[in-house]
This record gives sequence, structure tokens and C-alpha cells, in this order.
Amino acid sequence: MDQKQQLLLDTVKKLIRRGAYSNLSKVIGKTHPADIAHLFPHLTPKEQQTLFNLIEDTETAASVLSELDYVSGAQLLEKIGQEAISEVLQEMPYDDAVEIIRNMPEEIAEEILSTMKDEHSEEIEQLLKYDEDTAGGIMSTEFFCLPEETTVQQAIDALQQASDVEMVFYVYVVDRHNHLVGVLSLRQLLMVPPSRRLKEIMVTDVISVRTNKDQEEVAQLVERYNILALPVVDEWNKLVGLITVDDVIDVLREEATEDIYKMAGASEEELLYGHKSFKVARLRLPWLITNLFGGIITGYLMWRFRMTLEAVIALITFIPVITGMGGNVGGQSATIVVRGFATGNIDFSTLRKVFFKELRVGMIMGTVCGMTVGLVAYLWHHNIYLGLVVGLAMVSAMTVAATMGVLAPSFFKRMGIDPAIASSPFVQTANDITGILIYFGTATLFLAYLH
Amino acid sequence: MDQKQQLLLDTVKKLIRRGAYSNLSKVIGKTHPADIAHLFPHLTPKEQQTLFNLIEDTETAASVLSELDYVSGAQLLEKIGQEAISEVLQEMPYDDAVEIIRNMPEEIAEEILSTMKDEHSEEIEQLLKYDEDTAGGIMSTEFFCLPEETTVQQAIDALQQASDVEMVFYVYVVDRHNHLVGVLSLRQLLMVPPSRRLKEIMVTDVISVRTNKDQEEVAQLVERYNILALPVVDEWNKLVGLITVDDVIDVLREEATEDIYKMAGASEEELLYGHKSFKVARLRLPWLITNLFGGIITGYLMWRFRMTLEAVIALITFIPVITGMGGNVGGQSATIVVRGFATGNIDFSTLRKVFFKELRVGMIMGTVCGMTVGLVAYLWHHNIYLGLVVGLAMVSAMTVAATMGVLAPSFFKRMGIDPAIASSPFVQTANDITGILIYFGTATLFLAYLH
Repeated sequence: MDQKQQLLLDTVKKLIRRGAYSNLSKVIGKTHPADIAHLFPHLTPKEQQTLFNLIEDTETAASVLSELDYVSGAQLLEKIGQEAISEVLQEMPYDDAVEIIRNMPEEIAEEILSTMKDEHSEEIEQLLKYDEDTAGGIMSTEFFCLPEETTVQQAIDALQQASDVEMVFYVYVVDRHNHLVGVLSLRQLLMVPPSRRLKEIMVTDVISVRTNKDQEEVAQLVERYNILALPVVDEWNKLVGLITVDDVIDVLREEATEDIYKMAGASEEELLYGHKSFKVARLRLPWLITNLFGGIITGYLMWRFRMTLEAVIALITFIPVITGMGGNVGGQSATIVVRGFATGNIDFSTLRKVFFKELRVGMIMGTVCGMTVGLVAYLWHHNIYLGLVVGLAMVSAMTVAATMGVLAPSFFKRMGIDPAIASSPFVQTANDITGILIYFGTATLFLAYLH
Repeated sequence: MDQKQQLLLDTVKKLIRRGAYSNLSKVIGKTHPADIAHLFPHLTPKEQQTLFNLIEDTETAASVLSELDYVSGAQLLEKIGQEAISEVLQEMPYDDAVEIIRNMPEEIAEEILSTMKDEHSEEIEQLLKYDEDTAGGIMSTEFFCLPEETTVQQAIDALQQASDVEMVFYVYVVDRHNHLVGVLSLRQLLMVPPSRRLKEIMVTDVISVRTNKDQEEVAQLVERYNILALPVVDEWNKLVGLITVDDVIDVLREEATEDIYKMAGASEEELLYGHKSFKVARLRLPWLITNLFGGIITGYLMWRFRMTLEAVIALITFIPVITGMGGNVGGQSATIVVRGFATGNIDFSTLRKVFFKELRVGMIMGTVCGMTVGLVAYLWHHNIYLGLVVGLAMVSAMTVAATMGVLAPSFFKRMGIDPAIASSPFVQTANDITGILIYFGTATLFLAYLH
């Protein structure tokens, strides 16, 4: 939060506290809707409500709501009157209204839809049918398209009249059955004689997606071809919606957050629950319990080797470092692979190269760490064999961990399981187990020399 | 990689193998530059060179190069003749050309700049002065601006003539000292009489950034205000460049990758080194060595408690699970906080709430895991006190770990250190240490009952 925002926040809080609503109303009247929205996470629910009710202009209220994350938006709306809700939602772009309705309890959502004007509620219900994570789920239905027979002059006239349409940069051209047949940029429109027909000047090679396309693939397309808007068509190639680049930016943020959360064994769903600790704990627990049993298996293996340990108690000193380093190296390799899959940098055809690279990197790092820890072991316990055992175990454990870090996510990806969620606990447990086996295995072999 | 891409790749590889260059030339002539670029990661360096040399049209070659990541682009160019390089670079948008030159060895870069036409090299040298991660470093200098006295008709005429400009959607308006004073969308231009002057109709409230603005903040602005292009001004508010939304998408990807890598103790820099294992290992080692010494400290603490352990060897069974779970829980909390800082979802004003939430979540999860592992301990070793010790230690270790996961990144953030890089090893080591201390501390207390 920068200084300007902080100042605004302080002012708003002060004015709410004093009940100086007419002053407050003036202040927010001069503020950009996005900046108003930015205040909300820092206000109490009651302050949020007061502030939101003071926004007089419905259109501004709608813009503020569009900029809030959908969960907060839904929670805010639940508290204001139902007619006010419908009014605000009608002013919002349909795609944002749909997201907010998705995040409301079902009964409330249904009531709201029933109080809306038919033209709006039908449109919204149509959009609600698409899966949230697909092109249909994020597209806007307010786009600008014209028949192919239109002349340039008519197109310019139509553009001047269109008011309700989000960011017009391209004109999409359809045939009389509403099939998408071409596209034109506004700039191209300016560059040809007014009497030409669109079909003579349009670009016919339009990049479009089907409604059921996964949103992550949509983002990759927009990124790859540097386009600002992507038309969405149904199975008969009829134009049904438009995805603009601002939606794509939201998708990219969302998907990155999702991956980061998953890799740590959390879920982006917990953002919905805010500070409800039990719900958040419930989301994180399955992953922890998996790891818990992994840890118990590791413990069981140590228990099997207790004779070795009782014989040479100094061995305990290096248990944490051996299992820990295996986990770290495995985690590094797994992260590289999981992120590579997500950005398209790595796929199955390049996996072999990645595997051997990580193997080599693991060996190099293992050698450095093994020599370091072996030296520490020797100097500390004055036993060169202990140093040797610890060092050798470290090299092997780290090398194995690096390869495991590549294999696990690839395996899960191949099985159709999201590698981000599955790799972490698996890699960690596997590396703990192999680390302990290698360490105590080596120690048992050299037991005679360790005393 | 989808089917179409796979087919294209197979075809290209086959034609290269056969030396069927004229056929290959035809195939790539019909392919979108972004799709050609997409093939490169799957080709050997030699194949890449052959393919690139077959692109006859310099403009297409430039587009392909723009779509490659800058490192591969630089590596590719190093191998083709120097004059060809200058030619291709001159066709590229300056911002992309600059990125490629940045990734070349210095001598080569200088030679290339000296063979370029002066107008191009001057522009590029100017851009090279800005820091890579700032608005100046990612902006394009080809933008469309007009004096405020221009009429709408003149503006439209000018637009028709402008050819070399990337994505024109807004017209920026400057005064006679080149200060940025207003903005107009193309659509607004279409909606007013041709004789009006730009200064009468322009929006004067332009959102712009200074050249030294951090690129992550630039991305946040574009995201917040849903704008497609952001003008960049110097310290005197003179318009010097333009950041378009496609650059912002690249920044978002890049920053997310950077954070993900850092959290795992890797660095996005390693993408530059491809499969050079020693360089990659050198980037990852500092983090590992830090953790290595953390692990040795943990081991030292275990060593201090060896009497307790020798007395009750069953205690070893639960060492991995206690340190492991602490690490996991701490990692979850740290991830939530680090990502929250990056997306702006969490800042210092909301940190208190986050802290108490994570504390509660940690306690809830600790209770569940502690009861589970305590039960396992009791059933396995038939000692209720062992179950109690293990369970209690687990609850405390997990609760402490959760709070540590919030405190560490916040501390580093406050100190001006990137929390993504600093938190992970610190949180992990701290949790290992507190976990061991709590576990053996509790065990030592109850030692009399554990036999």
C-alpha cells in the first residue's frame, strides 16, 4: 500500500468513525473505483457496508464490486438489501456478476436472479451453465460483432452507438448464421474507404477458442499470440463471447497462486474462508496426514536399525541433515519440473534432458555437501569411518532425491493427476525413506569400523 | 504441446533430417511466427540454426525471435552472421531487441550495435541504460502520441500513416514540451466531429509511471485499473515510452516463476544456463549449505540429548515425524504469507489477523496430528506415557511452526529482504530445532515414566 492509499484509508476510517457521511461521500465521489475497492480488505465488515452504501452512483458501485475479489463481493452483497443487489449486479459486466453469484449461498442467488429483469437474469443463467475454469466461465457476452455485409461507414456508425460494450479494440465479423468469419482492428477500419464491406477487408484467420477450453490454455494462447481479446465460439463455430486480456491476467495470477499453494500442501480455496480457522485446517489436513504416515514409516525404518544406532550413538547427529538435505534437493527438482509443466517450458519430449540435468546437478551438489558434512563428522567425532559413512550417504541420498524430484511429478502428470499437489508429500516421504535406508544401510556395513 | 504442434514438429524434424529445405521453407512460410518459436525448445541447436536460416522474410524472423525466450534468442543469434543479426534486430520492437542484446556476451553485443544503423543503435543504447526490472527496462519506445493542438481529423490521418507502431489503442496527447497531458481511446476519436482539437476531448487524468518504477508494481497497476497500456514518463513528466499489456503478462509469469523458484531455494537465473549442470548447482548450493548447517545444529541438539535417547530407544521412531510435520506446517504458513505479500493480499496492516489465524489453524492441525501420532506411539510401544510425550510434542511443535511461518517472512520483508528467498531455509531450520528441543525436552521431563 503506497502513501496515497494509506492516506485515503486513514481519512475514510476517520470519517466513518465520526459519522461524517456527507464528507465521506464527497471523498469517495472523487476516488477511482479500483482505489475504493482496494480499501476493503483493510476495513471491518461493518465499515465495508457503510462505505459501500455511501456510493451513490450505481455504476461506480458496480465497478467497485467488479474490482473486489468475488468472495468479498458476495459477502458484502449478502448484507445489503436484495433490490439494491439486483440493481448493482445489472450494472456490472455479466462475467463479473456471474462470478459473484457463484460465490453466494444458493438460496440468495436464486432470489436475486428472480428479482432481476428477465433480459439480465437469462443472460446470467446462461453463463452459469459453463464450468468456472473454462473459456465459457470467464468470457464476457458483451462484445461487438457485425455482419460481413456491413460497410466500413456503417461499422463506424455502429461503434459510435455501442455504449455497453467492454473495451472495443477489434470488430468481429459474423455471417448470417452468426458464425465467426473474420476480425478487424479499429485501426484497420480507419484505413479503408467508408464504402468497402467488412468481408472484403477482414482478416479471416481468426484465433478463437471453444467454450469448454481450459482457462489455463486460454491464457497460454493469449500469451503466445500477444492478442488482447480472444473470441469464444460454441461447437458450431457461432460467436458466443469474448475473453479480454484483463480476464487473462486474473487467470494467470489465480493459476500461479493455486500452484504455489498446492506445492506447499495448501489450497487456494482457503482464501474463500478468510479467517475461519477450522475450515482452513480441514483443507490443509489431508496433505499433512499423508505426510504424517510417511514420517511414521521413516520412523519405523529407523526402529529397525536401532541396533546399529545403539552401537554407535554418534550416528544420530546426522539424521536430520541427511533427511533434510534429501528433502531440499528433491523439492528443488520437483519445483523446477512442476513449474516447467505449468508454463509449458517442459513437456514429455524434453523430460529426458531435464532428468539427466537434475541427476548431474544432484550429484555435484551431493558431492559438495557430502564432503562438507563428512569433514564435520570426522572432526567432531574423531572417526574417519564415520566421516566416510556420513559423506557417502549424503552423496547417494541427494542424487537419488534429485531424480525422484523429476520422476514423481512426471509420473503424476502422466496419470492425469495435478503434479503440483501430488509431488510434494510424495517426494518428501520417498526421500526421507531412501535417505534413512542409505544412511543406516551404509552405517551397518561399516559397523565394525565405527566403534 | 497439442496435436497440431506435435505434427508440425515431426514434419520439421523429418524435413531437416532429409535436407528437404525447399519443402521446409514452404511449411514454415505458412506457419504463425509464434508457432515456429514454439518448436525451438524441442530442436537441437543445429536444427534450430537450420530452421532459423530458412526463414526468408526478415520480419518473420524478427517475430520468431521476439517470441523465443531472450536467452535462447541470444544464443541462436550468436551463431548466425553478424550482419544478419543486425538486420533481424532492426526489425524487432526495440524492447525485445534490448532484452536479447542484454543476454549476449558483451563483446558480441558491442559489435552488433556498431554494425546497426545509427538511429537504431542509439535508441537501443538509450534503453539499455534502464534497469532491467523497471518500467524503463520493459517499455517500448514506439508509441503513438500527438500534440494537444491536433484536430481529430489530423489525428485520424496520422494514425493511417503510422505503420511501425505496436498495438495502437490509445492516442497519447502531449504539450509542446512533450509533457504527457492527456489520453484518448481510438473509439473516442470516432465519436467526435473531425474539427475538434484533442485537448478539448482528451481525458486529462492519465495513469502513468516513472521510468524507475519496479516492474512488479507496474503489473499491479495494470491489473488494478484494467488498462491495456501504461505510458512511461521521465522525471519531468515527459513521455518516453509505453508498456503494453503483453509485456505485463510476461512480467507476471516471470515474477511468479521467480517466487516459486525462490521458495524452493532455486533461482530463475538457472533458466539462463539450460543444461549446464555446474552453473545450476552453483546457484542452488548457497541455500543448501545454509540448510546443511541448520541440520547440523539440529543434530548437535540431538547429540546433547543422547542420554535420554539411549535410555528410551523407542524415542527415535518419532524424530522424523516431529521434525517433518513442523517443517510442513511452517512451510504452509510461510507460503501463504509470502504469496500474500506478492499479490498485495497481505500487508503489515492485516498481518496481525493473519498471525492469529495461522496460530489457531496450527493448533487445530497440531491437535489432530498429535492425537493420531500419540495413539500410534501407544499402540506400537505399549507405553501410554510415550504416547503422551509424542502427542504433546507434536501439538507444540506444530503450533510454534505455524507462528514461525508467519513471523519469518514478515521479519525479512520488514528488513527489506525478499521474503520468498529468505523464509524457506530459515523457517525449516528453526522448526527442526524447536521440534527437537520440544520433543526431547518433554521426553526428558517424563523420562522416569518412559521405561
